[in-house]
Amino acid sequence: MRETYILGVSMTRFGKFLDRTLQDLAYEPIWNAIRESNIDPHAIDIAFIGNAYAGLITGQESVRGQVILREAGISKIPMINVENACASGSTAFYLAHKAVASGQAELALAVGAEKLFCGDTGRSLKVLSTSSDQEIEGRMGILFAGIYAMRVRGHMEKYRITREQMAKVAVKNHDHGALNPHAQYRNRVTVEEVLSSRMIADPITLLMTCPLGDGGAALLIGTKEMAKRMGKRPVRVGSTVLGSFGFTRKDERSIAARVSNKAYEEAGMRPRDIQVAELHDAVAPVELFLYEELGFCGPGESGRMIDEGVTWLGGKLPVNTSGGLTSKGHPAGATGLAQVAEIVWQMRGEAGQRQINPAPSVGLVENGGGNVAGETAVVAVHILLA
Amino acid sequence: MRETYILGVSMTRFGKFLDRTLQDLAYEPIWNAIRESNIDPHAIDIAFIGNAYAGLITGQESVRGQVILREAGISKIPMINVENACASGSTAFYLAHKAVASGQAELALAVGAEKLFCGDTGRSLKVLSTSSDQEIEGRMGILFAGIYAMRVRGHMEKYRITREQMAKVAVKNHDHGALNPHAQYRNRVTVEEVLSSRMIADPITLLMTCPLGDGGAALLIGTKEMAKRMGKRPVRVGSTVLGSFGFTRKDERSIAARVSNKAYEEAGMRPRDIQVAELHDAVAPVELFLYEELGFCGPGESGRMIDEGVTWLGGKLPVNTSGGLTSKGHPAGATGLAQVAEIVWQMRGEAGQRQINPAPSVGLVENGGGNVAGETAVVAVHILLA
Repeated sequence: MRETYILGVSMTRFGKFLDRTLQDLAYEPIWNAIRESNIDPHAIDIAFIGNAYAGLITGQESVRGQVILREAGISKIPMINVENACASGSTAFYLAHKAVASGQAELALAVGAEKLFCGDTGRSLKVLSTSSDQEIEGRMGILFAGIYAMRVRGHMEKYRITREQMAKVAVKNHDHGALNPHAQYRNRVTVEEVLSSRMIADPITLLMTCPLGDGGAALLIGTKEMAKRMGKRPVRVGSTVLGSFGFTRKDERSIAARVSNKAYEEAGMRPRDIQVAELHDAVAPVELFLYEELGFCGPGESGRMIDEGVTWLGGKLPVNTSGGLTSKGHPAGATGLAQVAEIVWQMRGEAGQRQINPAPSVGLVENGGGNVAGETAVVAVHILLA
Repeated sequence: MRETYILGVSMTRFGKFLDRTLQDLAYEPIWNAIRESNIDPHAIDIAFIGNAYAGLITGQESVRGQVILREAGISKIPMINVENACASGSTAFYLAHKAVASGQAELALAVGAEKLFCGDTGRSLKVLSTSSDQEIEGRMGILFAGIYAMRVRGHMEKYRITREQMAKVAVKNHDHGALNPHAQYRNRVTVEEVLSSRMIADPITLLMTCPLGDGGAALLIGTKEMAKRMGKRPVRVGSTVLGSFGFTRKDERSIAARVSNKAYEEAGMRPRDIQVAELHDAVAPVELFLYEELGFCGPGESGRMIDEGVTWLGGKLPVNTSGGLTSKGHPAGATGLAQVAEIVWQMRGEAGQRQINPAPSVGLVENGGGNVAGETAVVAVHILLA
């Protein structure tokens, strides 16, 4: 396995775009990523396209990636549509890295795009619920907010995490998102506003949840030589690990703990080496569990971590400097690649008003997706090194 | 890149099974493939799951593979849902091969499953049509039979292929399918019956088209050492190539010609080395073009090839000994893996009443999928060696 590097990265602003097609949302970041890499598009050997719901929202199923890439003038190469619910973009990233690392390709394109907003929120929520097991959660009629709420309640009981601490995650991520021109929501909120916003599934309030939205993100993965020619600080894929549900009595670690352990091991890093992270805060309280599961703190210490400002911009380990899913938005297929884009920008010193100083050199992305038999179906963790 | 071998292979009978779930259709071949390989399921490192339409037929989108594998008792490993219309199974095969060839995995599972029959043919056809570009073919309102019919008309004009010759392909594949216990249709038909059956899209008649149906197929890909331990004739993946649409004036070869050329080259084989082939006869006349595009004969010689019985069981190059899509059936996600299964069985001498004697040692699979901008969106070609 050889080293792989992230070349051009790009994303659209996330938001509600009834006037933009899936192709259009993918075209913009594909061409910006290609242009930034300064590489002839014909040099792309293989493409992986992450999208979770287009078949159910736009009616374009099956060959979504081909339709997207035709629009971008790319043809003939292997095009692989991947789908792993909200981790579809990370799955494209994982495969693009593996293709280059193994020498199957010199230059791989990973694209993620999603249209979730269709003007009918009920329909969008129904479509999202297809990412849970239809024979278990589907029969019970539980939507994702309900699934998350039960987990959060369990965690509150066990570790005495308070509603204020959960609200602070939303406040932090909105603070960060306010500085990000790509974010769907750029307004700041207060703890009081978060707690008094509409209750969605106790203890999760409206301002703790990510919005429905559309967007696209793309990046190119290539060799060390290509990265050198770009003339920017090279960002290397230290590791990328994809794992699935599988909670058993023999192995009580959560999927995020299992997957991140493997990612640390493969990258030769420890949790305390991480200087910046983008985590899957589909609802804000989950970010707290992730601090613990990823080893950023011990069990039950995440509440203190947010209280002490560790994960705020300016803290020791800024988390979700992009605004996270809560504020930047969460167009499923695009999310994983947008998370990687944020880390790359931070490492290159291109994060504008939300830039960490000095630019970090070890970053982590965690992206989750779907639900099967009461557990998150997929978790991807990437460690990036500059 | 190291050599990879096909270990256990299995498929369900194809047919219309309102009483079987997607999970059930996948479970049967997964467990049979594992049992045949005589390998502990915990040794599986990675799984690729091909399915094209479950989100639109059963409502289980996104984490289809996870739901399938949970049912089979498989968890924790990377699970990657792939979708490439009717070539979804071949895409899973391609990635499973690459994972083992590159040393990322020792043992990879490729699964394909589909439920297309829902008791409402109109709905199934609408779902199938999502595999064409919704902004081109979708707006025109053309279904796949119409797209194929236009291609066949063009070919008839150019090469004087007759309706009788097209009908003979359907007769041959039904003759073969009659010998295959896995086939959806096991009845023989005559040229007269094919030509007088209902006209679907001139010149394609009902008996020239593949049926709607459900099914599953699975196989394991592993190392040479594992293949040796199986105690069966080892079948090696000589090459697997995935290509996309992209007809340009500079390159007037069809996608099947381009992709197969690369597959021959990678396997170090020529068209005349092929001893058995499974081709994507979604409508029977397409098999004739494929003889030409894959180099089995020269341009315009395919009509004579079927007339002379070359591709019949007992001929020099039997094609679609399984019955092909026309007779065996075509549950999209399963098709590509079922095609590989047929070649493996022929090579091992396990093809029962349809066994080629002596067992072939060089075989080819061609699997197509979707339609984009007037062209087949995806073609996969694998060359297998025993």
